[in-house]
Amino acid sequence: MELGRREMIAGAAALAATSGSGLAQPSGRKMGYAIVGLGTYGLGVITPQFANCTMSRLAAVVSGDPEKAKRVAAEHGLPDRSVYSYANFDSIRDNPDVDIVYVCLPNSMHAEYVIRAAKAGKHVMCEKPMAVSVRECEAMIAACKAAGRKLMIGYRCHFEATNLKAIRLVRSGAIGKPHYFRSEHGFVQRDPSVWRLKRALSGGGSLMDIGIYALNAARYITGEEPIAVTAQESTDRSDPRFHEVEDQIAFTLEFPSGVIGSCHSMYSSNQNHILMVGDQGRVEMEPATRYSGNHMWTGRDGRERELIPPPGPGQTQFSAQLDHLPQCIASGREPIVSGEEGLRDMRLIEAIYRSARERQRISLAPARRG
Amino acid sequence: MELGRREMIAGAAALAATSGSGLAQPSGRKMGYAIVGLGTYGLGVITPQFANCTMSRLAAVVSGDPEKAKRVAAEHGLPDRSVYSYANFDSIRDNPDVDIVYVCLPNSMHAEYVIRAAKAGKHVMCEKPMAVSVRECEAMIAACKAAGRKLMIGYRCHFEATNLKAIRLVRSGAIGKPHYFRSEHGFVQRDPSVWRLKRALSGGGSLMDIGIYALNAARYITGEEPIAVTAQESTDRSDPRFHEVEDQIAFTLEFPSGVIGSCHSMYSSNQNHILMVGDQGRVEMEPATRYSGNHMWTGRDGRERELIPPPGPGQTQFSAQLDHLPQCIASGREPIVSGEEGLRDMRLIEAIYRSARERQRISLAPARRG
Repeated sequence: MELGRREMIAGAAALAATSGSGLAQPSGRKMGYAIVGLGTYGLGVITPQFANCTMSRLAAVVSGDPEKAKRVAAEHGLPDRSVYSYANFDSIRDNPDVDIVYVCLPNSMHAEYVIRAAKAGKHVMCEKPMAVSVRECEAMIAACKAAGRKLMIGYRCHFEATNLKAIRLVRSGAIGKPHYFRSEHGFVQRDPSVWRLKRALSGGGSLMDIGIYALNAARYITGEEPIAVTAQESTDRSDPRFHEVEDQIAFTLEFPSGVIGSCHSMYSSNQNHILMVGDQGRVEMEPATRYSGNHMWTGRDGRERELIPPPGPGQTQFSAQLDHLPQCIASGREPIVSGEEGLRDMRLIEAIYRSARERQRISLAPARRG
Repeated sequence: MELGRREMIAGAAALAATSGSGLAQPSGRKMGYAIVGLGTYGLGVITPQFANCTMSRLAAVVSGDPEKAKRVAAEHGLPDRSVYSYANFDSIRDNPDVDIVYVCLPNSMHAEYVIRAAKAGKHVMCEKPMAVSVRECEAMIAACKAAGRKLMIGYRCHFEATNLKAIRLVRSGAIGKPHYFRSEHGFVQRDPSVWRLKRALSGGGSLMDIGIYALNAARYITGEEPIAVTAQESTDRSDPRFHEVEDQIAFTLEFPSGVIGSCHSMYSSNQNHILMVGDQGRVEMEPATRYSGNHMWTGRDGRERELIPPPGPGQTQFSAQLDHLPQCIASGREPIVSGEEGLRDMRLIEAIYRSARERQRISLAPARRG
């Protein structure tokens, strides 16, 4: 049976706090990751992070660009047999160096590669958003379960020191009874040619990409699952960037405790902010979920005290995330950001889009557990 | 014909900038105000502000407490004949010292005293919210029109330097194309016995009292009138403070340009914040609408530069507001925050309450103009 969210989050904090302290996988061998998709994130952000990992290493690369793949493999001392194309990806089953496949592809390709990885007998890390539909998410979870392999979603903020500190503050009663949550997440998407603006690849616009941080944070900061959502979209369809996907979408989440969560997602301005207000005070982060340089304040009415979380033991949010899955594999625990976590967000994303389209409030079924 | 909102706001800024510079009413006589309601606001906040006025003076007091009224009159050198009770209020018509009646009573009494003041031949300033229903607002406007007297609503932020600077920045294109507006307004309403928590006197909870600042700011900062509103209320009805009126209410405004306005009103935490985001930057105020000590920042992604408006020519937002109505009376212009302005907010307040109650989006008829 799955742990409750509160326990999972407490677990996340505990793991993040200990994962860099020399705790090793029983066998002593670092687990090998195959990175699928050598784009900005997979190559530019994730690959360098293995240097900060204690339980994970780069073991293989999968790319549609053979030259790039060979170059990256050479730079990281990988043998030729650990370079894969999308055509021969399934043969990764025969590579004992690869324990985990990390899917960093465009959103609409997540489901296919997660399912193929599970069928190849590998554990799977998949970038957010988990997929482009609830149906895909359910198929991904089923495939990993059938293969007896773990599935984790790349929600790095669950391993980020500022966000973990904010969660602890809220759970510890530092702000009193939580009343309302707010988050804006956006950036200026300048290039009309990027895959994120093509619906067939992205499945949606700013919400799928950056607004999901606000949505996920609304759940991990409050520790609650929403019971209703109401959304409004505003997109200038004459803008070449937004012919296929949304620019701005606002969504309001109603939580069982009475907390109201007000979120805003956009591709037309740079916003990165989280605020949780209770009857005794507030916790605020701006920027809140960046790769680095996040800031946090507490106060009664405003930004009265800046809190700087103590530096972690040599780990970043990325390396802590990468090391979490090997820890779960070794211990048999479910990842704190499992496929179920990705599915919960995807159910909400579908409801948000539906609410905006139909211009009505959408009631949500209670989240299924386990 | 009434000026468009943009012109009115430009006019507000211009007037505020010049009103303290020695511009005098043609006759040279300061116009006399009768303050109706010697409570926290009328006595504690407004009355001392006549010291900062160039065109206005305290001329009479109206109170249900004869001792208090006499004491205040004595402190301000008013003759006995300028002290009124609610019973003899209508005889104020015979007092040539009184040009303007300023209604600082509980919300549900605004309509009665505005109408009685107009019938007594006086111009009227009325505190926000203008009344407790659209029907009352319409009757108040009609009564003032029939009497040939001006009606102004006490929206002090239209005379507050930080807010005026924010309006100018947005209108001048400093943030590029406006995309979204956000405002939270709230404070902790501690005493369950205050009239603001009795529906018969207040007409509603936090929205009527403090949330109206967010609503009004959404309109004056964007310079637009919303075309739809969607609201969610969350109130702990077991809390003795909230047996009759709402605690929290969130409302999302859709504007014709595509701007989304996301507002939050509450009686359970101290929040006072305005943010306007465009595709080239943002303007933020926190606190935004306090009596003093408001702060403003501009930036691309966050609070990059604090802007401090130059100190005004000896006027405060309160004295500038008090002097605006005499200027309008002398020049024949409509106040920038006329009865129509109060009515627009009241139409929206009724729509917000209806949206929260019916759990549906409310489309709004285009705002009627002058």
